[in-house]
Amino acid sequence: MNPPMDRHTPRIAVCGAGVCDAPTYETARRVGRLLAEAGAILLCGGRGGVMEAACRGAKEAGGLTVGILPGTDPAGANPYVDLPIATGMGQARNVLLVLSAHAIIAVAGGPGTLSEIAIALKTGRPVVGLSTWQLTHGDGTPEAGIQRTDSPEEAVRVALEAALR
Amino acid sequence: MNPPMDRHTPRIAVCGAGVCDAPTYETARRVGRLLAEAGAILLCGGRGGVMEAACRGAKEAGGLTVGILPGTDPAGANPYVDLPIATGMGQARNVLLVLSAHAIIAVAGGPGTLSEIAIALKTGRPVVGLSTWQLTHGDGTPEAGIQRTDSPEEAVRVALEAALR
Amino acid sequence: MNPPMDRHTPRIAVCGAGVCDAPTYETARRVGRLLAEAGAILLCGGRGGVMEAACRGAKEAGGLTVGILPGTDPAGANPYVDLPIATGMGQARNVLLVLSAHAIIAVAGGPGTLSEIAIALKTGRPVVGLSTWQLTHGDGTPEAGIQRTDSPEEAVRVALEAALR
Amino acid sequence: MNPPMDRHTPRIAVCGAGVCDAPTYETARRVGRLLAEAGAILLCGGRGGVMEAACRGAKEAGGLTVGILPGTDPAGANPYVDLPIATGMGQARNVLLVLSAHAIIAVAGGPGTLSEIAIALKTGRPVVGLSTWQLTHGDGTPEAGIQRTDSPEEAVRVALEAALR
Repeated sequence: MNPPMDRHTPRIAVCGAGVCDAPTYETARRVGRLLAEAGAILLCGGRGGVMEAACRGAKEAGGLTVGILPGTDPAGANPYVDLPIATGMGQARNVLLVLSAHAIIAVAGGPGTLSEIAIALKTGRPVVGLSTWQLTHGDGTPEAGIQRTDSPEEAVRVALEAALR
Repeated sequence: MNPPMDRHTPRIAVCGAGVCDAPTYETARRVGRLLAEAGAILLCGGRGGVMEAACRGAKEAGGLTVGILPGTDPAGANPYVDLPIATGMGQARNVLLVLSAHAIIAVAGGPGTLSEIAIALKTGRPVVGLSTWQLTHGDGTPEAGIQRTDSPEEAVRVALEAALR
Repeated sequence: MNPPMDRHTPRIAVCGAGVCDAPTYETARRVGRLLAEAGAILLCGGRGGVMEAACRGAKEAGGLTVGILPGTDPAGANPYVDLPIATGMGQARNVLLVLSAHAIIAVAGGPGTLSEIAIALKTGRPVVGLSTWQLTHGDGTPEAGIQRTDSPEEAVRVALEAALR
Repeated sequence: MNPPMDRHTPRIAVCGAGVCDAPTYETARRVGRLLAEAGAILLCGGRGGVMEAACRGAKEAGGLTVGILPGTDPAGANPYVDLPIATGMGQARNVLLVLSAHAIIAVAGGPGTLSEIAIALKTGRPVVGLSTWQLTHGDGTPEAGIQRTDSPEEAVRVALEAALR
């Protein structure tokens, strides 16, 4: 049974690589679980690795999971996605994943995740980082827009606070 | 309280103009209500007119409504959208609305709706029509891909049958 | 050698199916040739059939051809495309093809072409038709936004007049 | 007069912020000039700052400039764009800018440029940097995919070598 939800329900995107090691998988799964326990809707890119782990954790806690997919076939979602959105737009789907979220949590991640962080910085969506990219501008100043956290608990707390602001 | 749902729950897109007359509004509202009563998730373009009417009807029956918006701001959705997806892609959002649905129901509609019918025909999503466009190919043969119906009840029944196939 | 060109050079999109019969191919080829002779830039979806024919005709007259492709690989363009734009967005590329043109010429065509006509009607780009779709609104009134023509010569003349307005 | 060109002509994207200081503007202008002198087609996001500077430099050397715009109106391009592509897709246009290029040159830049670097790393397009972002993965290893250069001359040389590979 999904919880009641409407447009005011926090929507948090969990971003990370489609293939990941076991500790990263467990971190993302815990992030998903905590988001669901807090009543948030989990958005993600709908594929494997960190995306699957976060959906799995959210489902284990009875949450709603949305997968915004690169391909044209909703069946391409991981098995823990409740609502697949098939964009057929490849990496451009990262843009709408970010735009649709109140905040994003980046868990480790490769270049796809980096693009999501960049789009969130560009469009003003709060970015929470867990063992993710560190960015330095061309003039040597560090990018201050990523709120770095040390645990799934802290990441989810910071993201939900940012979402409610 | 939203009903339980997962990736197997039928997702039906209701397509129509952002401004419409009162009878069309009531038709779309009834389509939305019937979809929700049948346990389907309502997808739409998230704006006014037929889109708002369908969401409103679905909410009145306790359903879940998804608005796939042209703009970058989730707050641009009509007040009956539970889950706004902000694409920032303008009319290109019509493509992902169609791709994400098991079937579409076109209620009357202008050129935006026509583009959704066209994309559905192109990508193999079933199209159900209610007082909508009639299309004739350049060689004079009528387009047979739109299943024409005469009532919200028939439209919803045909769409759900197509979705389950 | 390409002709001089800048942002004021007319940009005309030729739309049609990726597979077509020989007479349609020759019609599209002649449309492309006439556009190039008039100094216009040819835009198209970059694939086979009508798109290839129009590019081929334009190249035979020394014109510049732009292919706005559905895939991620510029090498997926037909051999007569000078400038491939790889969108990776599938059918959503139809939207930017239309938006980038001063006018579109629809040559016969299937549902993809229908989506381009629809987007042009929606976004105010002039539509010129050659043996293409005939559209009737849900209330029985014919769609008046397609300027029907009987020959490549007339189609190109009408499109260029519309582009210059 | 534009030079002859076809699908084998190198297409290099110059990426950078829409507002920039005078030294960065002159750097980008010189990059554009050198690309045009080498016979390459300049791709960019079509707006101001680094994008305008690169187009201006390319035009001063008689090159062809393509602006892949975020908005729906081709007239939104800077005055040095020869061929505006209006996407209407906002930041998602960054994806197709990168996909259409043989290589990208990032000149300084903010989060939009960062998203372009990320997409290029993701999709295998060579990235050349001039005073641009420095990236460190979550595990502390530096991202090695950006070829750092110290002058417009070196940046253009490295980009063209990568494009021809």
